[in-house]
Amino acid sequence: MSTIRCHITVSLDGYVAGPNQSGENPLGEGGERLHEWALATDAWQAHHGGGGGERSADSEVIDETVAGVGAYVMGRRMFAGAGPWDPDWRGWWGEDPPFHAPVFVVTHHAREPLEMEGGTTFHFVTEGVAAAVEQARAAAGERDVMVAGGAATVQQVLAAGLLDELYLHTVPVLLGGGERLLDHVGAPRLEIVKTVGSPTVTHVKYRVVRQAG
Amino acid sequence: MSTIRCHITVSLDGYVAGPNQSGENPLGEGGERLHEWALATDAWQAHHGGGGGERSADSEVIDETVAGVGAYVMGRRMFAGAGPWDPDWRGWWGEDPPFHAPVFVVTHHAREPLEMEGGTTFHFVTEGVAAAVEQARAAAGERDVMVAGGAATVQQVLAAGLLDELYLHTVPVLLGGGERLLDHVGAPRLEIVKTVGSPTVTHVKYRVVRQAG
Repeated sequence: MSTIRCHITVSLDGYVAGPNQSGENPLGEGGERLHEWALATDAWQAHHGGGGGERSADSEVIDETVAGVGAYVMGRRMFAGAGPWDPDWRGWWGEDPPFHAPVFVVTHHAREPLEMEGGTTFHFVTEGVAAAVEQARAAAGERDVMVAGGAATVQQVLAAGLLDELYLHTVPVLLGGGERLLDHVGAPRLEIVKTVGSPTVTHVKYRVVRQAG
Repeated sequence: MSTIRCHITVSLDGYVAGPNQSGENPLGEGGERLHEWALATDAWQAHHGGGGGERSADSEVIDETVAGVGAYVMGRRMFAGAGPWDPDWRGWWGEDPPFHAPVFVVTHHAREPLEMEGGTTFHFVTEGVAAAVEQARAAAGERDVMVAGGAATVQQVLAAGLLDELYLHTVPVLLGGGERLLDHVGAPRLEIVKTVGSPTVTHVKYRVVRQAG
């Protein structure tokens, strides 16, 4: 049975993006600082088709998060931004996106599947986040489903009781505003599975405990 | 030179107390879950004059936080609650409070120092939080000053650029509302000093980097 997982970076004050997000600045003010730790790793660079980067405890965390993923779920804003829906949009990632697996995009706009190079196919799901998770689970087989984001989609999956594992990467940055991750998620029961500290980020993997009944 | 320190427990969604705080329920709904990890340690029990509790990684964190403290700063709500000021109030901790050092209470109400048993004396500072930190620093000598809380006082000390070290204990609990720690603190620069993981709480010590100028 596949695990429904999410890994995401948050600021110490709980934001996944800074204030004043826009089309030109989707991460908001200061938001790029959230991702410096990942960009510095060899694992991230290799996964995104580049070279360089450092081998570190953070690299091992990246390796762990990308291993064994058979399908992805993402929100429409992560795929296409918040603006008007462009039916010909092919994502932010070029012709060979770094997913190499089926990606189920939650949107109100029906569209035929979009097959890219390297094994990535975007499927557009109009029946909501639970349907997207179910279709991703079926596509993933024995492998895991990764909820790629953004925050609203993670919140919906968590609030719906569909998430099994949340791996948070917390960086010592205070953004003071923006898009919070852990609002509107109800009261899921979480247990710490593991903690990995590094000089620039704290990784904690949580298991979401299924409530009886 | 003494270090101005704070250690405090927060929920995963950033609250130091849950929703609907009141005189009867100062920690708010669910807030008592924040402190279960500390209560379970032998170190906390010993520091508060009790026995029992477990020896664990969490105990060592408690030992570290209580060692070398020469004076405390706290807000009036931590000393006396949010209700009307009672000039005869002697704190929540009985006649032998667990501080065993001078405690500088920030309040608008002038009052003579209140000497308790065991070395604790409450001093009432009406000139604001910076004055309280300065008086505590003078009283502590070579030892450290601990900012005991509550959240508003920690925020003021941090926003005023007076804090040197923030040791956060994050528990995997979602309170969904209440009193947030890291709002209204400006944009202090933080660096990770150390990370200690345990099955029930994640301890991360941050250094506050002094900005040039």
